[in-house]
Amino acid sequence: MRPVLDDSVRLTDEGVRILDRRSFPAREEWVLARSAGEVAVAIREMVTQSSGPFYAGLAGLRLSARLHRDSSLGDARTALADDGQLLTVARPTNNHVRDAVRDVLAAVDAAAPTSAAELAEVVEAETARLEAAYRGGSAELGRLTAGLLPDGARVLTHCWMDAYLIGLVQEASRAGRQYEWVVTETRPYLQGARLTAHTLAEMGQSLTLITDSTAAAALSPQSTLGPIDALVTAADRVTMDGHVINKVGTLAHAVAATAFDVPFYALVLAPDRTAATASDVVIEERDPTEVLSTLGARTASPLVQRGYYPAFDVTPPRFVRRIVTDRGVFEPARVGEYHSESKESAQ
Amino acid sequence: MRPVLDDSVRLTDEGVRILDRRSFPAREEWVLARSAGEVAVAIREMVTQSSGPFYAGLAGLRLSARLHRDSSLGDARTALADDGQLLTVARPTNNHVRDAVRDVLAAVDAAAPTSAAELAEVVEAETARLEAAYRGGSAELGRLTAGLLPDGARVLTHCWMDAYLIGLVQEASRAGRQYEWVVTETRPYLQGARLTAHTLAEMGQSLTLITDSTAAAALSPQSTLGPIDALVTAADRVTMDGHVINKVGTLAHAVAATAFDVPFYALVLAPDRTAATASDVVIEERDPTEVLSTLGARTASPLVQRGYYPAFDVTPPRFVRRIVTDRGVFEPARVGEYHSESKESAQ
Repeated sequence: MRPVLDDSVRLTDEGVRILDRRSFPAREEWVLARSAGEVAVAIREMVTQSSGPFYAGLAGLRLSARLHRDSSLGDARTALADDGQLLTVARPTNNHVRDAVRDVLAAVDAAAPTSAAELAEVVEAETARLEAAYRGGSAELGRLTAGLLPDGARVLTHCWMDAYLIGLVQEASRAGRQYEWVVTETRPYLQGARLTAHTLAEMGQSLTLITDSTAAAALSPQSTLGPIDALVTAADRVTMDGHVINKVGTLAHAVAATAFDVPFYALVLAPDRTAATASDVVIEERDPTEVLSTLGARTASPLVQRGYYPAFDVTPPRFVRRIVTDRGVFEPARVGEYHSESKESAQ
Repeated sequence: MRPVLDDSVRLTDEGVRILDRRSFPAREEWVLARSAGEVAVAIREMVTQSSGPFYAGLAGLRLSARLHRDSSLGDARTALADDGQLLTVARPTNNHVRDAVRDVLAAVDAAAPTSAAELAEVVEAETARLEAAYRGGSAELGRLTAGLLPDGARVLTHCWMDAYLIGLVQEASRAGRQYEWVVTETRPYLQGARLTAHTLAEMGQSLTLITDSTAAAALSPQSTLGPIDALVTAADRVTMDGHVINKVGTLAHAVAATAFDVPFYALVLAPDRTAATASDVVIEERDPTEVLSTLGARTASPLVQRGYYPAFDVTPPRFVRRIVTDRGVFEPARVGEYHSESKESAQ
């Protein structure tokens, strides 16, 4: 069965339909974005997240080119760049959209189309290539990670690894390996309780849900859940010196895993060559009132006025055992070597 | 203003009225327990927790003696012991109720009453003494802890410290010290978001609410919240060799605090002389479906079937800077010396 979340952004005649991950799976609602700008708003408002903004960004670029098919070439090229900028800045921490915009504009300029219609064809082809490369890269991450996790391993994961998780489950299954999943719920959006748990169940996996603050207890030798063999998460970014930037809470679990000698594997297609270290990455702070509610209902005391909600945290390399990329598995201190190898990055 | 939670168990003519902490402060509802057995059920069902079961246990013993005022002395004494047993086993990890039952029965036997009415008077006096000692001890913990926290300190706390928190705020204020509080929400029951945050706000304190998994990020040098000076929690139990047993999540925060060199102070009236080490403490596992919901509403995917919810975790002494008791501040490895000092414990 193909998980619903594996096909959650669809370009239709009306625009880009995006599965609303804020309410899924309690409700399956699709947001319609009629322009790239509306796609950017949907990304900002967390209609989709994780790999979702990447797929939505590609669809937004395709939509932009299509909406300007009958314009002048110059107008279409300008609109594509402007829309690309809107999509890039929608959320600051993950760089997949930024890189996709850069690649699509470069492909357009290299192809030197003679009309807006030709430009649209180039955008169509390049976005399809990028999506295929992303899915292929995710499958490769899955294959490499399955190589680190023996059959029967109990795996703790945090937030929603999206394409990487689906790739891991598929590649492990291909290699004859089954895992026992332990899933953190991932407040405040509960991506773990909703998206990860749902998708793992759709794929026939065995899973146990825990609150975020139970992770350290589950990792400790006192745990009655049975030993956890690895902590595995995606990374929204990895810096060239091996810092892992991912959903807030990853640091907490990585520190606990290290304290109890459980390996932490972080998955990313490629480290970010534009980020030498953690201070080069903007950590998005979202509306702090999101902490005061759960799925839209107020859960904090009415007297609480202030929350603090950095969407991501930074895990220093000393708490990371290995970084899995589409070019192999690296010690965090050596992940920068990814870019010194001969093969050109597909990202 | 006296916080509502400082007076949340009341013995009335009808029975014991207990503030329902499961829904407070969204709703202020009181559960009426007409017998000690009903008090035990309320404790088991988390109507009250933290210091609440202790106050409720005392009220339950008083109610038991009162209900048997007109019985024979033997029947009243038997009922008191039976009711004490029900109250003791309602929840296994915190030992305040167990100790209170033991002390009340010992006081009864020492007083050798000649009637059930006299027995009720002894129970009345002894429970009043125990409550006063508990409140006095909490104030002393507050005074000693305030001595560890300079004026202006930013203090991270987890779950609901109840009488200890109220004592700390009052004693700090007496010493001219104000703190900036950072409060974890404490899933699944959200005691932090509801009880701690509410009570701190009632007492005029400045506070910021965070999700549980943000604690490590807030403790790290990268935090944009400003440096945290100490992690301070209550302990449901402390073993003689310095293990701290407290609400699940305490371990996560203690490990992160240690990794980032922030001191963790755990507050307990006295270490448990019946628990040499962690394996002597029963860690209560509560209904795992509680993880799948938030304040009664399902928040996990409908496909999730299994949760795991240990209510407490065990923090080894290496992650604890100091244990604050009513007889002073101890290094965890030396907390057993509490009981080798001359003064007899009031607990």
